[in-house]
Amino acid sequence: MSETAVLDHLRPNVRKMAGYVPGEQPRQGEIVKLNTNENPYPPSPRVLDAVREVLSGERLRKYPDPSGTHFREVAGRVLGVDPDGIVIGNGSDDVLTILTRAFVPENGLVVSPSPSYLLYRTLAELQAAKFMTVPFGSAWDLPSPWPIRGRALTYLANPNSPTGTVLSLTAIERLAGEVNGPLVVDEAYADFAEFNALHLARNGRVIVTRTLSKSYSLAGIRFGFAVTTPEIARQLTKVKDSYNCDVLSLVAAAAALADQDHVRQTRSKILVTRDRLEQKLAQFGFEVTPSRANFVWVRRSDRDVKPIYEELKRRNVLVRFMKYDDYGDGLRVTVGTDAEIDRLLDELRTML
Amino acid sequence: MSETAVLDHLRPNVRKMAGYVPGEQPRQGEIVKLNTNENPYPPSPRVLDAVREVLSGERLRKYPDPSGTHFREVAGRVLGVDPDGIVIGNGSDDVLTILTRAFVPENGLVVSPSPSYLLYRTLAELQAAKFMTVPFGSAWDLPSPWPIRGRALTYLANPNSPTGTVLSLTAIERLAGEVNGPLVVDEAYADFAEFNALHLARNGRVIVTRTLSKSYSLAGIRFGFAVTTPEIARQLTKVKDSYNCDVLSLVAAAAALADQDHVRQTRSKILVTRDRLEQKLAQFGFEVTPSRANFVWVRRSDRDVKPIYEELKRRNVLVRFMKYDDYGDGLRVTVGTDAEIDRLLDELRTML
Repeated sequence: MSETAVLDHLRPNVRKMAGYVPGEQPRQGEIVKLNTNENPYPPSPRVLDAVREVLSGERLRKYPDPSGTHFREVAGRVLGVDPDGIVIGNGSDDVLTILTRAFVPENGLVVSPSPSYLLYRTLAELQAAKFMTVPFGSAWDLPSPWPIRGRALTYLANPNSPTGTVLSLTAIERLAGEVNGPLVVDEAYADFAEFNALHLARNGRVIVTRTLSKSYSLAGIRFGFAVTTPEIARQLTKVKDSYNCDVLSLVAAAAALADQDHVRQTRSKILVTRDRLEQKLAQFGFEVTPSRANFVWVRRSDRDVKPIYEELKRRNVLVRFMKYDDYGDGLRVTVGTDAEIDRLLDELRTML
Repeated sequence: MSETAVLDHLRPNVRKMAGYVPGEQPRQGEIVKLNTNENPYPPSPRVLDAVREVLSGERLRKYPDPSGTHFREVAGRVLGVDPDGIVIGNGSDDVLTILTRAFVPENGLVVSPSPSYLLYRTLAELQAAKFMTVPFGSAWDLPSPWPIRGRALTYLANPNSPTGTVLSLTAIERLAGEVNGPLVVDEAYADFAEFNALHLARNGRVIVTRTLSKSYSLAGIRFGFAVTTPEIARQLTKVKDSYNCDVLSLVAAAAALADQDHVRQTRSKILVTRDRLEQKLAQFGFEVTPSRANFVWVRRSDRDVKPIYEELKRRNVLVRFMKYDDYGDGLRVTVGTDAEIDRLLDELRTML
């Protein structure tokens, strides 16, 4: 086989897809980074202690526990769910990959509201499946009856990204009854909202996914999980890599979940800053979507926002410019520390 | 959706598969663990230093570098390959998953020699693809011309597991010319052998995969990578999760590769113990396959080996019993420390 011949053997769906483009991760410089919804505050100190404690040659040389028993016990206790209904993942993107591979055949269908997390489309493309979107209504609600009749895996990010809006539990329950296939409620940002759908996962009506990248300040360790029934979890486990979570991230994740006080304190600070950010951005003439997450989605009708993103970037303030074919564009601004937000607002003040 | 309805939406290939069963990972007790080919010696001390150095809340709260630039630069220098031709993975199982998803459509074909790594079949099943094996010849060689004519992704573990045998570079080159599709040379154990196929990866003739779980004593951190051409790497990158490697494993992996002296010293000790283990097992009446890896494959024609595995387990010595429909069974014994091997041999002496 020559290189060309190997490339000819790529699946056509892979060859023609663009690939998911994650937010920029600048590795040096004095950048105010408000583009990938990282938590501006450090994780619980217990996380560092827990990692230090297991950091030995003896632990690193051995395989980790494939099912993450200790983590699942801690998470089950903290969240009030059955540990046997938890599936661990190398970030919640890994969990979303596992779900897509478990439920979506070639030429199958993945559906999500729009605008939403762009990865859902990529996951469909990787399965050589179709992808359809259903636009949110003007109140960030969804149509009932649900317009998609065919078998599909449906992803609902709640709170949604990039908008920070939430669908009510009543609407989620109704949607779960109307979709023809599993409904995955991607709760990456749920810890910043006022409610979540965990109780709906107990009987299998929805599958909930969580990440430790946002509220737990652990984007660097890659950890997420699904909450479902033990029988569905047993099936999903067949699809995951046996050792998809490493020994250090497993102890870090367990320590993080065990320290709920830390999460609550961090959350409170972020919500206060979020309110201030929303007010100021509105004063600067942005249309601000009220957020239930750790970011704010803003648009303008009077001018293009892309030049604003670009000028901010030149000034070393990184926000996320996002554009949807079926919706339009906007800026998603992570709620940073107060100092970071002050810096952003100062730059905007001189620019606008 | 009820739980039953969700289960009905599982892909049939997932529902009916058994799932890969990794080797047992007992989490407590005084077990002599010779069943999953972990390195009995600790990783380079530089690995622990490197992890300690980045272990801060600031690093953990931020996403890692998606492409692992620093690791790829180190690996490129150490191995003499183009860093742009390296694709990082969350263990080499993740890399094998990426390759399978990139090249194998539903109803496609995955091929490997037999007996070999059981995961290849699982990867095919997860793609709803077919899986075929080609038996090794009596000298652990492979047939030429290659009997599989159809388009396929072919996996060759070299050294092979569970046998520890190697296919020569000449035979690999010939095979690469005869297969109808990419040939992946899974070099998980190559650091214990006398040669490897890295130079064949440069022009895309084969794709080489590596792991840090064996020679680098880092099974706990989950890190592996593929070596191919930059263009093939670019395509494979579309298939991987953006952030599939975490910040701690990335620095651990780079530090491990940078300390080649440590790997050489560890390897030398293991090879000396391997020779002794092979001799003793032969004296105990086992048919020993000469190994080029960090384990030894043994069989018996005079009695079943499964009871030996079971009795050893009762005595807290864990080896791997493996059985292939098209080949038969045997025991795979990891080369542990001298003390661990002495313990195994003592138990066998009283048993046999």
